[in-house]
Amino acid sequence: MALIVQKFGGTSVGNVERIQHVATQVAKAVKAGDQVVVAVSAMSGETNRLTALAKEMQKRPSKREMDVLLTTGEQVTIALLSMALQERDCPAISYTGWQVPITTDNVHSKARIEHIDGEKILQQVADGKVVVVAGFQGIGMDGDITTLGRGGSDTTAVALAAALNADECQIYTDVDGVYTTDPRVVPEAKRLDTVTYDEMLELASLGAKVLQIRSVEFASKYNVPLRVLSSMKEGGGTLITAEDKFKDSDMEKPLISGIAFSRDEAKLMILGVPDKPGMAYQILGPVSDANIEIDMIIQNQGVDGTTDFTFTVGRADMEAALEILQSTASHLGAREVVSDDTIVKISMVGVGMKSHSGIASTMFKTLADNNINIQMIGTTEIKISVVIDEPCLELAVQSLHEAFELDK
Amino acid sequence: MALIVQKFGGTSVGNVERIQHVATQVAKAVKAGDQVVVAVSAMSGETNRLTALAKEMQKRPSKREMDVLLTTGEQVTIALLSMALQERDCPAISYTGWQVPITTDNVHSKARIEHIDGEKILQQVADGKVVVVAGFQGIGMDGDITTLGRGGSDTTAVALAAALNADECQIYTDVDGVYTTDPRVVPEAKRLDTVTYDEMLELASLGAKVLQIRSVEFASKYNVPLRVLSSMKEGGGTLITAEDKFKDSDMEKPLISGIAFSRDEAKLMILGVPDKPGMAYQILGPVSDANIEIDMIIQNQGVDGTTDFTFTVGRADMEAALEILQSTASHLGAREVVSDDTIVKISMVGVGMKSHSGIASTMFKTLADNNINIQMIGTTEIKISVVIDEPCLELAVQSLHEAFELDK
Repeated sequence: MALIVQKFGGTSVGNVERIQHVATQVAKAVKAGDQVVVAVSAMSGETNRLTALAKEMQKRPSKREMDVLLTTGEQVTIALLSMALQERDCPAISYTGWQVPITTDNVHSKARIEHIDGEKILQQVADGKVVVVAGFQGIGMDGDITTLGRGGSDTTAVALAAALNADECQIYTDVDGVYTTDPRVVPEAKRLDTVTYDEMLELASLGAKVLQIRSVEFASKYNVPLRVLSSMKEGGGTLITAEDKFKDSDMEKPLISGIAFSRDEAKLMILGVPDKPGMAYQILGPVSDANIEIDMIIQNQGVDGTTDFTFTVGRADMEAALEILQSTASHLGAREVVSDDTIVKISMVGVGMKSHSGIASTMFKTLADNNINIQMIGTTEIKISVVIDEPCLELAVQSLHEAFELDK
Repeated sequence: MALIVQKFGGTSVGNVERIQHVATQVAKAVKAGDQVVVAVSAMSGETNRLTALAKEMQKRPSKREMDVLLTTGEQVTIALLSMALQERDCPAISYTGWQVPITTDNVHSKARIEHIDGEKILQQVADGKVVVVAGFQGIGMDGDITTLGRGGSDTTAVALAAALNADECQIYTDVDGVYTTDPRVVPEAKRLDTVTYDEMLELASLGAKVLQIRSVEFASKYNVPLRVLSSMKEGGGTLITAEDKFKDSDMEKPLISGIAFSRDEAKLMILGVPDKPGMAYQILGPVSDANIEIDMIIQNQGVDGTTDFTFTVGRADMEAALEILQSTASHLGAREVVSDDTIVKISMVGVGMKSHSGIASTMFKTLADNNINIQMIGTTEIKISVVIDEPCLELAVQSLHEAFELDK
C-alpha cells in the first residue's frame, strides 16, 4: 500500500466533466489499494476571471487582497472534487491551505513554503479518506492568506509529498510525460521513462515547460520521486528521480536525455572594447541593474588590445538592453554595438555527459555536416548549449535527435 | 466618532458597479468621521451558481463541503470591496470568518455563532482602516469552515456590532426601511422612523421580510441599535431598538406600528370530535410529527359532547396535513374534516397594545363595517391576528391602515 500525492492542474479540473473524470481516476487508485492525497488548482479560466474583476476595482490591485481573491479558486475545486469522490463511494475531505496548515512566509503573490504540518492529513488518510488539498495557497506567519505564485500547485504537491513522506508525487498534465524533444519539431521524439532532477531542471528552464522549475528543485531537495503523466491518457508517464538510482542498474542509460530549445533569445555584441580589468562588470552591470536577465556570455580577446563581448537576453528585453549598451559603448570608447534577434538556443541535456567525452564533438560535427554555423557555445556539467540562426532550428534539432539516436 | 457596522447584501454587491457604489458610500462615512466595519454577502447569483455546480457533483451535496464551496462567495466580495476602498484612498483590510475569528458550533449549513474575537478588528480600526468582514461564515470548534445559513450575513453584522460594542448596526437593503404595511397593497403606507425589536420580530415573521428574524433576536439580546436603510436611496431608514427608549419621551408613539399579512396560509378543521382529555395532542401530534408547522389553533366545545378543532398550516403543507387529519378522524370517530386554502392572516402589531385597550374592538368593528367575516382570532401581548377570506385581504388591510391612522 503506497501513499501517493496526485496533482491535477487547472485544465484537468476545468469543468464539471473533467472534475468527475479526475474523481473516477482517484477512486480507481484508491480501489487499487493506494492511499491518495490530491492537490488541485483552480478551474481553468477562474484565475483570469477573478483577476479581471480585481483590475476593475483597483488599478494596481493590493497583493494581500489578490491572494484573498484568487485562493477562492482552489477552494471551489477542493469542495467539488470531494463531493464527486463521495458520490463514487470514496470517502473524501477537503482542506484549504490554512487548514492543513501550509505555513509560508509573508510575501504575498509569491510566498515560499516554510512548513507543512502533515498530521491532520495523515490522520484522515489512516481513516480511509482521500484528502483533497487546495494547491497554490498557504497561510503566512501573520495569519494572512498567501499564494505561491502561478503554477504553485506543483510546488504544493511536491511539498506535501515531502512532508507526508509519500512514495510518489504524480503530476497530471495535458502531456503524457517528458519527451526527448518537442514532438512538433521532431515527430520521432520519444517519451522518456525516467529522467533525473538535474536533467529535468535543464530541460524545463530551456523551454520544455512541463513542470514548474521550483517544484523540481523541491523534489530534488527532499528526494521525492516525481512522475509526470497525462490526466486524459493512460500510461506510466515519466519518472523523475535522483541520479544515483540508475548508476549501477542502468547500463543502457543513454548519454543524452533530451534536446531543449528556445526561440526566446536575442544576441547583443559590443566590439572593440579596451581590454582592461573590470570591463565585464562595466558592460553587464548596467544591463542587470535594469532587471534584464543575461543568459550566455562570451568574451573574445582581440590582438589589438581590445576585446569583444557577446551575450544573450530574452527577446523582449533586446531593445532595452541595446539602448543601455550603446550608452555604455560611447562611455567606454568601444568600436561598435550589434544586436540580432533572429537567433535560437539549442541545448543537449544528459547526466551521461559527466562520464562520457565526445558528446560535444559529435554535436559540432552534426551541425557542421548540415552547414549550420555555431555562433556561441556554453556548457555545464550536464548540458551543452549552442546559439545558431533561427531558420536552422528545425534542421539542427532533427539532425541532433537522429545523431544521438534519441528516437531508438 | 461613532463605530458603525454596515452590512451590504448580495444585491448591493451584485456587480462591479454596485461594489464601487458601496465603496463610495463607506468611504463617505469614513470621511464624515465614523469608524466603519463592513460585513458583506456573496455577489448575488454566486450562491446559486455554486450550488448548481455542487448538485452536478453529488446528489445530496455534503454539508461540510457545501460550506467550503459557498464561503468562497463572500471571500471574493471582501477582497474586491477592500480593493475598491483602497482605490478611494480609504485604507481597508479584509477578513474571512476564520481570520476574525468568528467561532461557531459545528453544525454545517446552519451554524450558530459561539464567540467573536473582536481584538484584530478593533486594532485595525484604531489604525484607521475599514475592516471588511465576510458575512454568513465562521469556523467551527473543530477547525472546519461553517456557514450560518441563508441570510446569515445579517446575523454576522449584528453579532459583530455586539462583539465590538458598536454604536449602531446598519443593514443596507433594497428597501429604505420598515413600512406600516406593504406599499403594494396600501400606497399610503408610511416608513416607520423607529420600531422595537419585539414589533420587528412580529412584523418579520408575518411576512414583512426585511430582516432575518435571527439577527433581530440577536440585536435584541445584546441591545444593538439596528437600522434598516436603502443602499441606493438616501434617507435615515428605520431604527430598531429596545422598547424603553420610547417609554417616557415618545408620548406620541402610535398604538399600532404596522399591519403584516400572509397569503401563505391554509386552514384545517376536524369537526365532531368526542370531547375527551388528550384530544388536542392526538389530533395535532401526528401533524407535528410530520414536521408540519402549526400556527394558530382554536378549539370550540360543542353542546353535544363533541368538540371542533381548527388550525392553520403553511399552504404548501395543506395536502399532507389533510391526509394525516383524515386518518386521525376515522381513528377517533370524528364527524368531518374540512380544509380551506383561500384564507389569509392579517396581524396588527404594536407595543402600544400592552397599555391600551380597545384596539381589538376597533379592529373587529372596522372589519365588520366592511362586511369582512373573521374566521379565527389569535392574540399575543403586542399582536392581534385574524384569519379572513383571501379575496378580502386588500380591503381589510387598507381599511385597518386608515382606521388606525397609520398614514398620518
